[in-house]
This record gives sequence, C-alpha cells and structure tokens, in this order.
Amino acid sequence: MDSDNDQQVSPTNRTRLRRLPKRGHYDRDTICAILDAGVVAHVAGMTEDGPITLPMAYGRINDTLYIHGSSRNALINALDGSDCCLTVTHVDGLVMARSAFHHSMNFRCVVVRGTARLVDGDEKAAGLKAVVNHVAPRWDGSRPPTDAEMALTSVLALPLSESSAKIRTGDPSDDTDDLAGPWWAGVIPVRTVFGEPQDAKDLPPGRPVPTALRNLAKR
Amino acid sequence: MDSDNDQQVSPTNRTRLRRLPKRGHYDRDTICAILDAGVVAHVAGMTEDGPITLPMAYGRINDTLYIHGSSRNALINALDGSDCCLTVTHVDGLVMARSAFHHSMNFRCVVVRGTARLVDGDEKAAGLKAVVNHVAPRWDGSRPPTDAEMALTSVLALPLSESSAKIRTGDPSDDTDDLAGPWWAGVIPVRTVFGEPQDAKDLPPGRPVPTALRNLAKR
Repeated sequence: MDSDNDQQVSPTNRTRLRRLPKRGHYDRDTICAILDAGVVAHVAGMTEDGPITLPMAYGRINDTLYIHGSSRNALINALDGSDCCLTVTHVDGLVMARSAFHHSMNFRCVVVRGTARLVDGDEKAAGLKAVVNHVAPRWDGSRPPTDAEMALTSVLALPLSESSAKIRTGDPSDDTDDLAGPWWAGVIPVRTVFGEPQDAKDLPPGRPVPTALRNLAKR
Repeated sequence: MDSDNDQQVSPTNRTRLRRLPKRGHYDRDTICAILDAGVVAHVAGMTEDGPITLPMAYGRINDTLYIHGSSRNALINALDGSDCCLTVTHVDGLVMARSAFHHSMNFRCVVVRGTARLVDGDEKAAGLKAVVNHVAPRWDGSRPPTDAEMALTSVLALPLSESSAKIRTGDPSDDTDDLAGPWWAGVIPVRTVFGEPQDAKDLPPGRPVPTALRNLAKR
C-alpha cells in the first residue's frame, strides 16, 4: 500500500504529544504499521447529542483512511465535512509495577484528526475495497457489490496528514526506592489472535477455506 | 461488584439503537459483563481542538465507571463537567459473507454517554483502586499510592445511567440468491489472550508471580 515510505507526518499543535513526548512518533512507517495491524478503529465526532465514539472497520490507501457505513448511519452522516478523530489501539501488555501509581500498559496507538468527507465514484469503490480487504484479503473471493448495494453504503475519506503514534514498550518504570521491595513486578503480554475459520452452517460442500484466511491464525 | 443485577438501563433518545435495533441490549447484566471483560475503553470528548478519542484504563464500582490520568492530562481536564462518551469494544469474529456487502464483524460493544466529574477523597481512592484492579487483581499486591502520587492523579466518575450494548453473533447473513454461489463463507474467530507473566529485568530473586496474574493466561 505504500508508495513513499520515508516521510514524516509533521505534528500539528493538536497531534504533538504533550504528556510523555518521548513516546510520540510522527514517521509515516510507524503510523501506517500500527494502522495496518488493527482490526477496528474508534471514530469520534460531535453530534447534536454530544460527542460519541463508535468502533468501525477501516482501510488505508497510501495517505488516506476510509471508513464506511449504512447511508442512513447517523454518525457517518454527521462526520461528512466535520472535524473528527480516528484512533486505533493495540494493547500489547499489562505493566505491573511495584507501586500502584506506576501501573501501566504497553500499547501502540495512532490518533488521526481531520475533516472526513464522503467520496463517490471510483474513489468510493476503491475505499470500500480497502475496507473489506483491510484485515483479510477478501474482496476477490466474494461477490462484488451491486449498484443498489453501493447506494446503500456511504464511504468517508480521512487524510493521514494530521496523525501521530504513541508507543509504550518494556518493563515497569518503578521508583528506585521501590526496586528492592517485596512486590512482584513485570509484564503480562496481551495479544489478539485469529482462530481457525469456521464454515457457515449453510455453506454447500466443496467450498474450501481460502488459504489467505486460514493463514490469519498463523500470525 | 454487582449489588442489584436485575435492572434495565432505560434507553434514552441518544442511547437507543436506531440502526439494527435487534442488536441492542439495555439490561445491566449484559452491559456490565461487556465492560468487566474489557482491557481499555475509548473515551471521547470535545476539546478546543475538536473531538478526540483516546484509549484509557477504567474500572467499575456498581453503576459508576472510573477513569484516571495525570492531573495535567488535557483530555482528563476537558472531560470534567463535560459531556463525554466511553466505548468498550470486543471483536469476537470476522464475518466473511458471500457478498462483499454483507461482510461484518461479530462484536460486543458498550457505549456510555453522560457527564464525567472529577472525584476526591474516599471516592477518588476507591475509583483508583477499581481502575488498577479492573483487568488483574493487583492493588493488594503493590505499594499503595502516597499523598503526593494521589495529588498527581485525577480520577473521573461516569455514571452508567445512559448506556447501551450492541452485540452481533453468528454466521454471515447472506442474500438467499447468493447461498449456492461459489464463494466460501463463515466466521474467523478473534480473541484477546494473556500470556505468561514476564519478570521485570530488575526484579530481585524470591518474588514469585502472584497466582491471580498467572491465571489470566488460562482465561
């Protein structure tokens, strides 16, 4: 998906990390690797009922993220032309410190801020394909959408131009005075794993699981 | 944590599901079970830089959720007294349909909307303990916070009174005309798993991993 990988995304005043700035990353490779490894994003926008954040599937083509939803979805429609935030988080570990205060998590997180816009035509078709193919290469193994299905679906584009990554790795950071104390300290790894694909109950015989889907379990 | 389990949370106009209402749940047991099984929430609020959503640890005591952060954290401070949204999502499966259009995910999601408020004194201490103990029972196995550490930490409370759950389970819902088609269809299970706890590199000998932490890997 990458056409030009050695770029930095210039942090803006609202994407530059203020708390613990050493955990901030603004290079495109780091940001895209975190996005590409995610399953769902949490997308936030302002509605007449207040701020809301909902999980959504997403896809990426170069420097643009795509999300989709029913053309009658209230949040999707509220986001068009509006300021929004899209966040993808991986929890990699529970960081168990000596002190309650220094408990933490290891994680990789990307925050994208910007204005989403509804797209149409070729960009809509490409965006939808990117969303379907994001977690598993699936577009070519399924029936393409009809015109009626396309009309029922809205696709929004969000540029990566205002984005940042925040990453924590490694051991707890305990106070020196606590290091010899009686408490256990360490990290409990956390992972998202994919299982063996399960046939739909109404699947006729002779439709084997595509290899690419079976391979997700080996990740 | 439950004192009274047979309650319904009355849906309000902004928590009642409008799209696919059959997937909506408003009973307290369902909502709390999804919250209790989560690792991080995505919390959304409106800041002067626009809407934002960030991952946060959280805890629950009866009908109240607690989140915490540095007393200098911009979002934590923006949320006090403000309308916010807290969302916890579990992805349980990738739903691979015959048609691109019917691809979906199996998931459990809780959305809580309401006004967060900073808490102090006994409620702050109890809320912080609930956050630390949320994923792993850890408070009693670590050094309690000092007064100075408490002063560096802010704790916000958010009531569950306006909350809803949305759940999708099971096979793809393909169109009848597609059922006999050539495509594979089914579900790829997705799970979050905890690994074996890893000692911190600077852990002195004679501090065994607490059993409750080792047991997370058996979940």
